[in-house]
This record gives sequence, structure tokens and C-alpha cells, in this order.
Amino acid sequence: MTQAAPPIGAGASGMFRRGPAGGMRAAGPAGALRYAQSRQRDFLADLARFARFPSISADPDHARDVAACAGWLASRMRSAGLDRVGVVPTRGHPVVTGEWRKAPGRPTVLVYGHYDVQPPGPAAQWDTPPFRPVLRGGSLHGRGTADDKGPILAHVAAMESYLRTAGRLPVNVVCVFEGEEEIGGPHLAGFLAGFEPARVADAAVVSDTPMRRAGVPALVTGLRGVLTARLRVRGPGRDLHAGHFGGAVANPAEAACVIVAGLHDPAGRVAIPGFYDRVLAPSEGERASARLAAPADADILRAAAAPAGWGERGFSLYERATMRPALVVNGIGAGGAGPAARAVIPAEAVVELNLRLVPRQRPEEIAGQLRAWLATTVPRALLPPGVRVTATFGARVRPVLTGTGHPAMAAAARALAAVFGAEPVLMRSGGSISAVASLDELGIPLVLMGYSLPGDRIHAANERFGLANFRAGITASILFYAEMARINGDH
Amino acid sequence: MTQAAPPIGAGASGMFRRGPAGGMRAAGPAGALRYAQSRQRDFLADLARFARFPSISADPDHARDVAACAGWLASRMRSAGLDRVGVVPTRGHPVVTGEWRKAPGRPTVLVYGHYDVQPPGPAAQWDTPPFRPVLRGGSLHGRGTADDKGPILAHVAAMESYLRTAGRLPVNVVCVFEGEEEIGGPHLAGFLAGFEPARVADAAVVSDTPMRRAGVPALVTGLRGVLTARLRVRGPGRDLHAGHFGGAVANPAEAACVIVAGLHDPAGRVAIPGFYDRVLAPSEGERASARLAAPADADILRAAAAPAGWGERGFSLYERATMRPALVVNGIGAGGAGPAARAVIPAEAVVELNLRLVPRQRPEEIAGQLRAWLATTVPRALLPPGVRVTATFGARVRPVLTGTGHPAMAAAARALAAVFGAEPVLMRSGGSISAVASLDELGIPLVLMGYSLPGDRIHAANERFGLANFRAGITASILFYAEMARINGDH
Repeated sequence: MTQAAPPIGAGASGMFRRGPAGGMRAAGPAGALRYAQSRQRDFLADLARFARFPSISADPDHARDVAACAGWLASRMRSAGLDRVGVVPTRGHPVVTGEWRKAPGRPTVLVYGHYDVQPPGPAAQWDTPPFRPVLRGGSLHGRGTADDKGPILAHVAAMESYLRTAGRLPVNVVCVFEGEEEIGGPHLAGFLAGFEPARVADAAVVSDTPMRRAGVPALVTGLRGVLTARLRVRGPGRDLHAGHFGGAVANPAEAACVIVAGLHDPAGRVAIPGFYDRVLAPSEGERASARLAAPADADILRAAAAPAGWGERGFSLYERATMRPALVVNGIGAGGAGPAARAVIPAEAVVELNLRLVPRQRPEEIAGQLRAWLATTVPRALLPPGVRVTATFGARVRPVLTGTGHPAMAAAARALAAVFGAEPVLMRSGGSISAVASLDELGIPLVLMGYSLPGDRIHAANERFGLANFRAGITASILFYAEMARINGDH
Repeated sequence: MTQAAPPIGAGASGMFRRGPAGGMRAAGPAGALRYAQSRQRDFLADLARFARFPSISADPDHARDVAACAGWLASRMRSAGLDRVGVVPTRGHPVVTGEWRKAPGRPTVLVYGHYDVQPPGPAAQWDTPPFRPVLRGGSLHGRGTADDKGPILAHVAAMESYLRTAGRLPVNVVCVFEGEEEIGGPHLAGFLAGFEPARVADAAVVSDTPMRRAGVPALVTGLRGVLTARLRVRGPGRDLHAGHFGGAVANPAEAACVIVAGLHDPAGRVAIPGFYDRVLAPSEGERASARLAAPADADILRAAAAPAGWGERGFSLYERATMRPALVVNGIGAGGAGPAARAVIPAEAVVELNLRLVPRQRPEEIAGQLRAWLATTVPRALLPPGVRVTATFGARVRPVLTGTGHPAMAAAARALAAVFGAEPVLMRSGGSISAVASLDELGIPLVLMGYSLPGDRIHAANERFGLANFRAGITASILFYAEMARINGDH
């Protein structure tokens, strides 16, 4: 098994790289690996079943589907041999939990994932229906296959592989599978606060980030935070005939555009006063490493199918997308477009904003800055008479930097290197996982070790998850638990 | 019967106010009026049936509904006693025609209307379903009731009232009921070119404009033209994860907003170079008349449920909405908004533009100016790298000024004054009817005499048509045909 190269685990404590603790023999991975190999078809069929649930957390019309998906997942975890499997209600969608904690003296690993998915978006953009998973070109295509049902199931399959062969796991595991990740995880921190195993976990592993590229694993060392805001721009009391009123009454759709146009300055920086005040600049060391190992501009443009980059000067595209904050318009809707277009001045426009925040920025403070900008600059300069704007805020997720020096990172690096034959790249992700921020606040060391690829189109149409990655994810999870067994639990 | 006040018909030729021409006795309106009175319930039931067809010309998925609606209308015209009723195919939706031409020596009136409707827009905005007409508060509520199915049916009912009593009409009539008015009437001019009765019509009456207000009729003397354009703003090849790419790739939704924000200057004028070059200023006389009789700013704001006016300085709201051109964003769509919102950089944004043009502006020339602006100003100043914009043009309708001095206008004024007990107001409308432009080009004198009210919410949710207006419309149509009989046909 390949040793992790510095700096991963370089700052590890004395507990690191000890042999198995306690008097027990560790459950070796060999039997589990053989079992996983023999059950590949079954695991794939499970993933296809799992991905059929339209567990769209953002859409209240799909609340039952989210619940049904939670029930299916719980039953799959039970059949894997996990104990105390439960669907725990929250004020929103439930958390699915399960555990195996029969290895006293061994470390406890909290495995986090989410079974909810993004809305599918326009049906016409999908080559096959989003919730009818289809195997094509070596990948399972369907909403949620990569984000995050495939990676969740890789862990469950890995646990089953141990339990059906050795009858035990090499470490204690606690599963926390959330149903609200895609809406900013509003109830997970509250759930974790009352969840006893979260207080004893030696590490949390989260498989919800991409690899560097096919064949090259990544350990993610930082996530951006999120603040979402919905702007409602209202004008006349109802939609108006465009001919009878056009030119005499201000148009909320146009006002919304003027507001959006004011959100960036011409240099591509966010124009909200104070927005950059707390931004923590990356170290020169991290920037230098990124130049060597992180995706080059050309890689990012290829993954985006974009002809050119954009954004803040002085930073690479990788840096802009991970170490620098961003404001993204996710959507805008007013009147109708396409066949639904009508000859009206629409009464209202809605703008969906998504701000990605970096370390030291605080979602609440940014919300206050946006609110202040809307209350002062916008009415003075950008709003025509008769139009008003209101903002409501949704997801609020803190940015996170994981440490790289803790032993679980080294364990993950060894497992990944063994599976892929390549050392994992340390890199930041521009994504956001609210649970990671919550786990970080509880002081649990974090391992962000994902199995999807940058081209898997997560959040977009034709999302997919490669079978090779699914298999490698199961293997990597099996080896990671084995590597974690070499760390001495200190509770 | 009240005489029309000057200036209506003041320039009438010698034919004006002669007695009935030819040797025939005119069919008197008294019997027709009694018949119409006795059949009110039946006519209302007919309108409710007519308005159940979702004859949405803009939506290809409703092509069959448009065809079914045409068939229903034709059969209703046959049962009214009209001859040569037909559903005439075009390369788009059919034209429904019918006639009664058994009064040699009498004038021929072309009655134009349209049986297609605007899309209903969001279902949630409707108090009752758009295509389940419901009588409430003295009005029939439903898409198309006022625009234009109610007014069409008022004419058909008026014709039936004569034919079932006198067995004849006082004038020759030719009906042209279009199925593509709401999409700019792309095939009507071609249809009229080959339609023999259009060459012999002495006047055309179009009941597709609003009254001044309840109880006060209007004769519309001008319509704005239309040019619609759809802008597609494209960026990355697919929707991108907002976290993984936000800040590094330009966002077509934001670019669309910047383009829209550039379409007006800060003073509320359209910023496209050359846009105002050909605009014909209204005469001081017309402006002075408008100050007396046309809706005041407060009237327009009340009708719009708008808290404030907007637009070009130096003009009243009435003038801005009728005599001045306007650019209206009908809709904008990118990503999703509301429950369909996704955390993406959308690959594409669509902007629906609706330019309302005034006399001397030419739709084709304005299209060229918009295209030139998009090709020169936009890429240089407003488009980020990696984003491109294309425009496709839809409806192109010329603006029209009707003469006020021809005898058919005087006939209409007398009929309206008799029905409402108030002289009709001469006013322009900010709306556009492509057929009117086509009829004007054929040299047919135009009478724009509508029966709906400014508050009937045409094009918007909860469209309605007052029963009192439906009844008055039938009566006015009956009297208009009688008044037209007093004009000597000159063919």
C-alpha cells in the first residue's frame, strides 16, 4: 500500500500510524473486497432503484418522494447488516441513521452523505428521463446518481462487504444520511446537536466531492460557503397588456435586470459594499501547490464546455472557483419565455441568487450587506418609480477549511492511493456542504473523499455516475475503514 | 338617434347621410333588437362554449384546440344563417369566413375578429381556471372572453338577429375571423390578397379595442405597430454547478440582464440608435383633444393597479402608451425560479422583447437597428467573454392611423351614441392588430369600435367580459349595420 506523500498527515499526532489498538484482530479487507467484487451487479441494481426516487428536497410537492427514498435507504442499510437503523424526523425532511459500534477501543467513523437531489430542470435537456436511471457508455445516467446516491451506496456496500464476510467492521461506524443537503441543510446542525455518536466520532468521511479527474483521486481541503437569496421585484398589481400600457408603466422584469446588472462591477467583482472585507487570501504555498496540481484553466473550461473564462483578474479559474467568493444568478423568471411568452408587462420578476463564500466571510453578515445594498443603492439608482424589491434568504452555509494534518487524512490518502495507483491531489472545491460546516463546528476531523468526476454533470441535465467510479468508491471505502483501524481511538 | 359630434365624419363625402340606396327597403333594426333581447341567455351560453376552447395560437401543442375552435365558430356562424361559411387553411392556423351578400347596391362591411387567444400564464394567478368560463360579478371570466371571442360573437349574434327576423341584413357582410392575431397574424395579409370580398368592402369593422370606460364608447383612431424579438443568450454548453464553476465562467442569465439594462437610457428612452428617427409627432390638435377626452394619468394608473407612472418625459401616460413607441420585456427565463430553482449557472437565457411602434416607424427597419445594436454595442460593452447572443424576430405589424372623416366612422358614432347615450371618444390605442394594418394597406376604411373595458384584464390572468358590454355590443353591432345601410355603396 502506497504511503501518502507529504504534506498529507505530516502534522499527525503520535496516534498516527500506530498498529491496531486494543486486543482485537482487525477485520481484514481481503474478504470484503472479494465479496464486493462478486456483488457488483447487485450493487448497481440497488443504485438504479435508489435513483428512481425523485427525492427533490426543494420542491414541497416531492416531500412524499423524499420520505419514500429515506425509507428505501433505511431498509437497504438494515439489509446490509447495520444496527439501529432509523428514519429520524426533523422539522423538514428526515435524516437516515444507522451504525455498527461493536469494536470497543477502535476509532469511530461518522459517514455523512445525502439522499436528496437537485430538481431535474427542463425535461427537454435530458437525453433520458431524470428518474429512470439508464446505463449508457459505462455510466448510470439519472438525477442523483453522482450527487450523492452513488457515493452513499458505495459506503453502504463497503459496510455490507465486511459484515457479510468477517461479520464485523474494522472500525465503529455511524451513518448520517441527510435529506436536505441541496437546500442548505437547515435542520442538520440541530439534529447533530442531539445526536450522541457525533460527540464520540474520531473522524467524519464525506463522499460528496469530485475527484481530480478520472484515475486521479482528490482529498478536498476546503469548501465554499453559501448564501442564497430570492429577490422579488414587483410593479403593477397584475400582468398588463404590453400594448395598452407599454411605455407608461415601469416593468419589473426590466427593473430586475437593472438590479442584476448592478451586482457586479465592470471588472467582474461583486459590487456589494463590504463583500470582500473579510476574505482570507490563500497562502502563497497553497497557490503554488495549486499551480502544480489543481486543474488548469483549460481543464476547467473543458469541463464547463465554456469557450472562455471570466471573473476576477489576478486569479486562475481554479482560484476564482474555489478560493475567491462569487455571486451567481441561478435563475430568473418573469412573464413567460418560449411558447409560454405573453404580450404583457409582467407584474413580478423573481431572481434566484447564489453567493459562494470563502473562509472568514460570514453568511449572515453578507445577507446584511445585500439587504443594505438593496435598501440604499438600489432604490436610489436602479429602481424606477412604482417598482419595489424584497429579498428573502434561504441557505446559509459557512465556508470550511479542513486540516490536512490529522491521521484520518493520511488513512484516506493511503486508501485512495491503493485503489487508484495515484496519490490523491489536495485541492479545494468551490462547492458547499452545510453538514461539513456543522461537523467542523463540532470539532470532528473531516475527510472529504469523493468518487464522482468533474464531468458527471451534477446539478445539470444528464447527471451520471461511472460504474468504474462506483466500484472504485466501494473499494476505497473498504480500504479506508481498514486504514482507520490503524488509528488509536482516544475515547 | 344622436347625431355624431364633429369631428367624426366631418370630412365625409357626398355619399354620407343619404337615405337608403337602391330600390330596396332596409331591414329595420327593431325586430332584430327584440330578437337579441329575447336570446340573451342563449348568446351567453354560446360565449361560454366558445371560450372553453384553449385556442392558444402561440403554443404548437394547442394547434388542435385552435382548429377545433375554428370548427365550432364556423358551425355557429352557419346556424346564425350566414352563407358560404368555411374554415380556410393557411400555412398556420385557419381563417374562418362567412358572408351574407344578398343586398345588391348596399355597402359591404367586412367584419374582422380573432378566435385565437393569449396563453393563460401561471395557473396560480387565476381565480378560476382560464378555460372554464364562469359568470361572476356580472362578467364572464375566462381567457379570450373579452379578447376577442365576446366581441366576435356580438357580431354573429347581431347578424343572426336580423336573419331570423327580417330574413335579411341591411348591408352585405363578410366575416374574416383569424386564428393568428395573438402571434402577429403572419398569414392574414396573404389570405386577404386572394380573398375576393376584401376587394369590394366599403368598410371594415374591428371590435378588438377597449371602450373609453364603462358607459363611454370609443372609436380608436390609431394603433401601434409591433415587432417581437426573442434574444437567446448562450454561455457554457450545459448548466453548470454553481459552486464548482461560480466566479470562473460567465453567466448567460447575468449577461441577459446586462443587455436588457442597456436597452433603455436612464431617462426611460429606448437606447437603440435610430429608434426614434422616423417617429411622427402627434399634432398639437390631437394632443389638446387627448388632454380633454383621453384617460388621465390617474385613470391609467388605476387601470394598471400601478403606484406610479414611468417613461419618456414630456408626455402624458396616455401619450406614452399610444403616440410614443415603447420597448417592453414580456418575459425572461433562465435556470429556474421558485420551486424549480437549481444551484446552477444556466447555460442559456431567453428574453422576449416586444417593441410597440408608432406611425412612420417600420418594423423591418427597427429589426435591423436592434440587430445592429446587438452586433456592435452589445459585444463591445455588455457581453462578457464566452457569451453570445442571437435574435430571432416574430411578429411584425405596421402602426396604423385610421382616418376619422369617412362615412363608416360617422355610422359607427351614431350607433354607439344611440346604445350608450354618450358620444364616442376618439382616441388612440397602444395595442396592435396586424389585420388592421393589412386592411389599411388594401385601402379599406377602418372602424375600430370595441366593446371591452380597460379593466377586463386582457392578456392577463382573470380576463373577463361584462354581460352588459356583451349585450351592448350586440345592440351596437345591430345598429351599426343599420347605419351603414344609409351609406351608398359605390361598387
